Amino acid sequence: MATIQDIADRLGVSKGTVSKALNGAPDISETLQKTILETAVEMGYTRIRRKDSRKLCILTENLEYQEPHQFGYEIILGFRQMAEPAGYLVEIVDVSERLQKSVPYDVFMMKHDYPGAFVLGFSLSDPWMKDFETARTPAVLYDNYIMTNPRMAYVGIDNNEGMELTVSRLKALGHRRIGYLSGALGSHIMQVRHSAFFHAMRQNGLKADPALTGSSYYITQCLEKQLPRLLEQGATAIVCSHDLLANAVMVQCQQLGLRVPADISVTGFDDLPMCAYTSPPLTTVRQERIQLGKSGYYALDSLMNGVAIGTLLLHARLMERGSAGAVRKKGEGAV
Amino acid sequence: MATIQDIADRLGVSKGTVSKALNGAPDISETLQKTILETAVEMGYTRIRRKDSRKLCILTENLEYQEPHQFGYEIILGFRQMAEPAGYLVEIVDVSERLQKSVPYDVFMMKHDYPGAFVLGFSLSDPWMKDFETARTPAVLYDNYIMTNPRMAYVGIDNNEGMELTVSRLKALGHRRIGYLSGALGSHIMQVRHSAFFHAMRQNGLKADPALTGSSYYITQCLEKQLPRLLEQGATAIVCSHDLLANAVMVQCQQLGLRVPADISVTGFDDLPMCAYTSPPLTTVRQERIQLGKSGYYALDSLMNGVAIGTLLLHARLMERGSAGAVRKKGEGAV
Repeated sequence: MATIQDIADRLGVSKGTVSKALNGAPDISETLQKTILETAVEMGYTRIRRKDSRKLCILTENLEYQEPHQFGYEIILGFRQMAEPAGYLVEIVDVSERLQKSVPYDVFMMKHDYPGAFVLGFSLSDPWMKDFETARTPAVLYDNYIMTNPRMAYVGIDNNEGMELTVSRLKALGHRRIGYLSGALGSHIMQVRHSAFFHAMRQNGLKADPALTGSSYYITQCLEKQLPRLLEQGATAIVCSHDLLANAVMVQCQQLGLRVPADISVTGFDDLPMCAYTSPPLTTVRQERIQLGKSGYYALDSLMNGVAIGTLLLHARLMERGSAGAVRKKGEGAV
Repeated sequence: MATIQDIADRLGVSKGTVSKALNGAPDISETLQKTILETAVEMGYTRIRRKDSRKLCILTENLEYQEPHQFGYEIILGFRQMAEPAGYLVEIVDVSERLQKSVPYDVFMMKHDYPGAFVLGFSLSDPWMKDFETARTPAVLYDNYIMTNPRMAYVGIDNNEGMELTVSRLKALGHRRIGYLSGALGSHIMQVRHSAFFHAMRQNGLKADPALTGSSYYITQCLEKQLPRLLEQGATAIVCSHDLLANAVMVQCQQLGLRVPADISVTGFDDLPMCAYTSPPLTTVRQERIQLGKSGYYALDSLMNGVAIGTLLLHARLMERGSAGAVRKKGEGAV
């Protein structure tokens, strides 16, 4: 374990300078502070935490969380409901790609004196995703998975279970030609749900037809390029990777003169607050967001105490509303 | 939610009789008590817990845990280290197949007033595994997974990660023809490790040759029927599904005149206390047993509080000792 003296020796500066830089004293230049922080991280220096500086950060990227109807709101609330009674101050930091490129994750955490982070909304291409593979500061990632680093944990719901609940319900409703539409496969969670869909189809003894699946980054593209093909190929039900897409698919189907669910069933994933109010209300897989936030805190607390939790998945639950129904008895779409 | 009155009405007995049966009063016949308990469970009756009766059970089957060197010892210790300070009395119950057949899981739990169980050592053929699919009393299963029942959670280490660590290390040591020997595939965990091995091989760009894998219920059978084939087929390293098998494989190889690891590398899984003392000491994947026990308690506490944890996996860690080494440079075994 490196000491302040070790860092000073390496850089040829005084112990006092290192100490000032680590504590963010204003009379140290920004360049020098950066060098000292980076060296401290590189040498494995661990700050002895002051009793009075218990704070944690929630790092967000591409996540809406300000309003109760937004996806991140309850996740953050759940985390704070656990962290704050335990004596932590929770700071929410929106981290841009530019910020991530300008400073390594460990250095950022040391600079701001955060012993751990809850990370929400990152995509596979976010620069810090690479840092996380070898980072030393504990982080819990919502819906992202870093293998083999004991300082990193993944929390989420069990997407395999969610797809199994969806597909087996559709099967019970008589559906056989079940399609799958997805957002771009550039995020961990879209990849996981994609393979979970195929797995669930196999588990239910159904043929997952590649001609009945498609993915696009933009929802409009999905509606224009993928959806018509699925309908032509005789899909009687369409499982969507997330609720916003499912709602758009329902609206588009209705504009094409199809009734949901009489002519075509549509299901979502996430159970956004809007799902109860779509037309018809959306049958979807629920993510218990408050509980996800609470589990995120538990996993982070465990990591900070040396219990190397890697994965914590909550049970999925199918919310049956109006958008999935029995398959049509006659007509070209039914089997 | 059914009341004591509802149960009494259904069975045509008095409220007092139902109440006595639920509390195990001695003046109720065993047959009548059984009928009342089963009806209570069937009707969804939930006992209002007395403050002074906080106890939990650890249900074991086929598990050695009495001595510090046995696998279950530390798992149970870790669970108790969390549960007892929280005010629970922890009772360990060995449940035979006969017991499981004689009484449904929920009835057993209600009869003994256990609000939750930590389940260790069950195989897929244990009768209560079927009960768990629909049971209402929370249970956390070590190394067994029940899908879609929000009252059931699975804790274990991340076997995929363990296999990835093993295979990538062997690859770095120059091994290409890596074999896999396993116990019988009749347990969840043996199935998971089996597919994790193939997955890890693919991830590392190696060909997993079915001719280089084998499984048997008895270790001697594995040594006699499977091991010779792997050696003939030119395996330079053998990954074993568990430490006892790995140790037996090392001994057998040495009896056949092979040096471990100079001629053949062998790895295990579990990190039993014996692994540091085998000859050579065994390179294996560590299960942090104390932490598994603690995580088991956390998951059970969460389930009992309505937080539907489904899966909690700890990071795996490769313990490098002496049984895996660089591949031979020459000779028919090397590639």
